[in-house]
Amino acid sequence: MTTTIELGLGEQELALRERAGRVIPGGMYGHMSVSSFSTAHPQFVVSGEGARVWDADGREYLDLMCSWGPMIIGHRHPAVTAAIVDQLGRGDCLDGMTPTAVEYAELLVDTVAAADWALFCKNGTDAMTTCVTTARAATGRRKVLVARGAYHGAVPGFAVRGEGVTAEDQAHLVRYEYNDLASAQAAADEAGSDLAAILVTPFRHDIKRDQEMVDPEFARGLRALADRTGAVLVLDDVRATHRLDLAGSWEPLGVRPDLSAWSKPLANGQPLGAVTGVDALRGAVGRIYVTGSFWTGAVPLAAGLATLTELRRGEALPTMERAGSRLRAGLAAQAAAHGCTIRQTGPVQMPMLSFADDPDFRVVTAWAEAAVQRGVYLHPWHNWFLSSAHTDEVIDAILERTDGAFAVVAGR
Amino acid sequence: MTTTIELGLGEQELALRERAGRVIPGGMYGHMSVSSFSTAHPQFVVSGEGARVWDADGREYLDLMCSWGPMIIGHRHPAVTAAIVDQLGRGDCLDGMTPTAVEYAELLVDTVAAADWALFCKNGTDAMTTCVTTARAATGRRKVLVARGAYHGAVPGFAVRGEGVTAEDQAHLVRYEYNDLASAQAAADEAGSDLAAILVTPFRHDIKRDQEMVDPEFARGLRALADRTGAVLVLDDVRATHRLDLAGSWEPLGVRPDLSAWSKPLANGQPLGAVTGVDALRGAVGRIYVTGSFWTGAVPLAAGLATLTELRRGEALPTMERAGSRLRAGLAAQAAAHGCTIRQTGPVQMPMLSFADDPDFRVVTAWAEAAVQRGVYLHPWHNWFLSSAHTDEVIDAILERTDGAFAVVAGR
Repeated sequence: MTTTIELGLGEQELALRERAGRVIPGGMYGHMSVSSFSTAHPQFVVSGEGARVWDADGREYLDLMCSWGPMIIGHRHPAVTAAIVDQLGRGDCLDGMTPTAVEYAELLVDTVAAADWALFCKNGTDAMTTCVTTARAATGRRKVLVARGAYHGAVPGFAVRGEGVTAEDQAHLVRYEYNDLASAQAAADEAGSDLAAILVTPFRHDIKRDQEMVDPEFARGLRALADRTGAVLVLDDVRATHRLDLAGSWEPLGVRPDLSAWSKPLANGQPLGAVTGVDALRGAVGRIYVTGSFWTGAVPLAAGLATLTELRRGEALPTMERAGSRLRAGLAAQAAAHGCTIRQTGPVQMPMLSFADDPDFRVVTAWAEAAVQRGVYLHPWHNWFLSSAHTDEVIDAILERTDGAFAVVAGR
Repeated sequence: MTTTIELGLGEQELALRERAGRVIPGGMYGHMSVSSFSTAHPQFVVSGEGARVWDADGREYLDLMCSWGPMIIGHRHPAVTAAIVDQLGRGDCLDGMTPTAVEYAELLVDTVAAADWALFCKNGTDAMTTCVTTARAATGRRKVLVARGAYHGAVPGFAVRGEGVTAEDQAHLVRYEYNDLASAQAAADEAGSDLAAILVTPFRHDIKRDQEMVDPEFARGLRALADRTGAVLVLDDVRATHRLDLAGSWEPLGVRPDLSAWSKPLANGQPLGAVTGVDALRGAVGRIYVTGSFWTGAVPLAAGLATLTELRRGEALPTMERAGSRLRAGLAAQAAAHGCTIRQTGPVQMPMLSFADDPDFRVVTAWAEAAVQRGVYLHPWHNWFLSSAHTDEVIDAILERTDGAFAVVAGR
């Protein structure tokens, strides 16, 4: 370990926090508010390149969050930057659709196995709301099955925490247990002839909980349940977009949804969401009214086209998988060497680490704080994300830094 | 009139429509779907500069829509492009907040009279949903007063058209009539002790309806009603953002909302929304959970900072007002010369034109189609938007082209 360990937050960070505290509620809000998960993470990140980011005090971090998902081919990828600058030379948000939207929709439809069409929006939440509204329009029904604890967006209709939500906002949600087909069947029975849609994430990635891969029988069972009841099967692929399989996260299982919601890394950081669907739902999506001022903005679409083009070259997904496996093996070995019992769950490209006997996340938080102080940006109880910029060298450098973090918590 | 009049859609346009029809439901969706308002407008716009846009066949249009609002200092404004390119050199969506967010929040709070803090999002709908959720968290109440016909976003909670919306989605909305204080009072009485918020747009800008300026007594009455009932007054400034008064659209009236929603031209085309509010609501907004993957993305925030900086130089708003007045006077004179009876409503910077005895919009649609065929991009039944790129010369060129459009419909 030759890394200089800087304890405490830097001067620029503290100065920015003070300024932010005056003009932004709580200094920050939502998932990126570090006060909710760490005393050691910088709230401010000023630059990035590949798999590295730098804070306001110039400290470097190897990045295991990829901005909570958006960066899939690394910060400041030259192909995406070039596409943005090129598009800026023609315009950004224009009076009509850009031809780039068509080209990108064609490429997405060609890429995603279950897609006959695509629609673009800005947030993952936009995409999920559009899916639910489309399913209701298609079926003339109201009830929506949702896994207990699943995150589908930070709006009243899906909220799992926070104030300001009324009972009516979720009046038609019926909960089931992830990977428990009997509970999904029971929820469908409860919904009866009013069942419009079944929402499901490709694997279980609720916060503050070990991740859980989907049981293929459960996935196939949900597909059969939707077919039997005439409900629309909606795969919420927002978080897993493009990282597990470009054709869709359940394509390896042979289970195809009717609608899929996409976002996060679609445009490698530019704001973009998408819905794809099957031909049978083309009419329904045309009868709902969804729109947004920037939904056909050309710059994010150009960035999306460049990102998918890069991903389709074929090297990025194997790179992420190899990096994830290397990271998982390395962390397992370090934990064992330090006598720590850990669990590593979920797909290797979207890792999550937890400690045994740590119900209140104190140990993993101390470990994550020790990691960030050693220059590895990761989260104690939210999954991480890898990118194609995570080469073997980056993973080895990460492991060089995490070893000291295990030393800090060893024996707790 | 020396402009060559090209009737019919171009070859590239038709080819793009055919491709789009295969991979995008209906070929396009939402407010920019030309099939909903015109047979003559191009669906595709490939570039823009200042107050001009070009379609896929190279035809030039003088732009009176400004992309339905986002372009406030003109397409491809060099200061915004420079800010985007500069920010791209550091990164876009990063692991934490960018210092630009703080600088921009400081500038927005300094600019908006009723703002003690700011929060950033992506869509105007995000901003309005955040306002309602905050109001409910602050008051512990549920009911929300909304003007009949008002547009606050294309989501089930606010939808005024489209399928897939359930009764429960709007269970707590209570309708009042815009500019009718007695109806607002009656709605508040109906909500009783459960009244959380009063939503209002700065003027009435419902689609397919002449615009209507706010009665200052109505605005003051709503403020008093909110004070009397403990409800939160929410000004939906999304559409009017920055065009009427940088301090807020009701600042000239001396009426300050508790929360304001902003979007459209904040970042001159890049995707950005914002909520600003008073100190008393800082705690409540901290207790709700709202977030989005790209809400602190640095590139849109850098574009927002550049746009507001440019607007604060002081020339843009007077330019838009002068352009709007010149346009209004010119259109009035042309209509009179052609024997057409028209109404021009709303603020001159956000004009709307309708014809007498035209309940089904046939005349204004024919006029708008004739205008676009002569190279002026405008809408038959949605308000238009001016930008600071609308110089006297641009307005005069627009008027040169609209004269022929009046000739087409004269005598109908």
